Amino acid sequence: MIPNAIDRLVALLAKLPGVGKKSASRMAYQILEGESSYALTLAEELAALHRSIFRCGVCGGFTETDPCPICSDPGRDRSILCVVERAQDLRIIEESREFHGVFHVLGGLIAPLEGIGPGDLAIGKLIARLGGHERPEERGVKEIILALNPTVEGDTTALYLHKVLRDFPVEVTRLASGLPVGGDLEYTDRITLSRSFRGRVKI
Amino acid sequence: MIPNAIDRLVALLAKLPGVGKKSASRMAYQILEGESSYALTLAEELAALHRSIFRCGVCGGFTETDPCPICSDPGRDRSILCVVERAQDLRIIEESREFHGVFHVLGGLIAPLEGIGPGDLAIGKLIARLGGHERPEERGVKEIILALNPTVEGDTTALYLHKVLRDFPVEVTRLASGLPVGGDLEYTDRITLSRSFRGRVKI
Repeated sequence: MIPNAIDRLVALLAKLPGVGKKSASRMAYQILEGESSYALTLAEELAALHRSIFRCGVCGGFTETDPCPICSDPGRDRSILCVVERAQDLRIIEESREFHGVFHVLGGLIAPLEGIGPGDLAIGKLIARLGGHERPEERGVKEIILALNPTVEGDTTALYLHKVLRDFPVEVTRLASGLPVGGDLEYTDRITLSRSFRGRVKI
Repeated sequence: MIPNAIDRLVALLAKLPGVGKKSASRMAYQILEGESSYALTLAEELAALHRSIFRCGVCGGFTETDPCPICSDPGRDRSILCVVERAQDLRIIEESREFHGVFHVLGGLIAPLEGIGPGDLAIGKLIARLGGHERPEERGVKEIILALNPTVEGDTTALYLHKVLRDFPVEVTRLASGLPVGGDLEYTDRITLSRSFRGRVKI
């Protein structure tokens, strides 16, 4: 007895991450009770999304132009390459305004249990960006920062990349792992605490 | 440096209930990384939504036909009228398959602090459905169930409707308030506990 269009919309919204059937229903009714201009604008953005956004041929991030604005910006430091798992990690790092080099999106992490091996990631492309095995000194990349999550998969991938990149004249670093700012020792897990001890810095 | 289309989509998604900037960003990237068919289907549903769905002229619920399938269903018991705050409450009650009468959507609750008075609700329309003050016996409604939330606004509105409906030959009831099934006495607030004592039933 509920209009089919509402049911269809609820079913579609429930596929979004972190959205269950109840939240999807709340969303659908808010869209329905709100201005139709909101629904129409959202519809237009969604319809145009895959047409206007694609992956940058150089770094693998999402872009509206190829190469992307970061890869084609002469102001970025091409000697530092930041390796991230997914395109959205690139967004988070850009928003922090901490990094002024260029990026490389792996497209995942090594996860043997999920059947994801090194061959599924953009590692060959990363090596090509370093000039390949033949001319490693040609491209001028001096440091590769691995900005991978401090998880088992992140650690495995970092270790693998470290091994692969050993033959190249680049420094391979990884983001510091330790207590988050504003965190509390009391609520910090043992492994994070142990890492922050090992990675302690002089003040 | 992040594509504007992604930023615009994130800003739009962040307007949905319960969705912050972080969740909106996760949603946008999932849509982007997923099949374009999902984005296109969602876009179509949203674009058609306000065109195909409107409010039923009788009960005020959302419908694709006027009157709505519930109001025009000869199998529904027209002697019992269930009064709800919003159209989505109607959906929840329909899904419980507990109620076989017809509905009336008030479109809100009396909330003086938010400037919502009885005049802002579909109360005149409710009285008209009872045959108006002139012919109250004509329409055959025997019972009005107030399915309003057990909140201050719900209580105020129930009290007001009870007063307004006093002159009509209808019984006015309200959904039972008490311990939720599966709940725990230990975690029940004082007011709910007090209500469930006053509303205790013989076993």
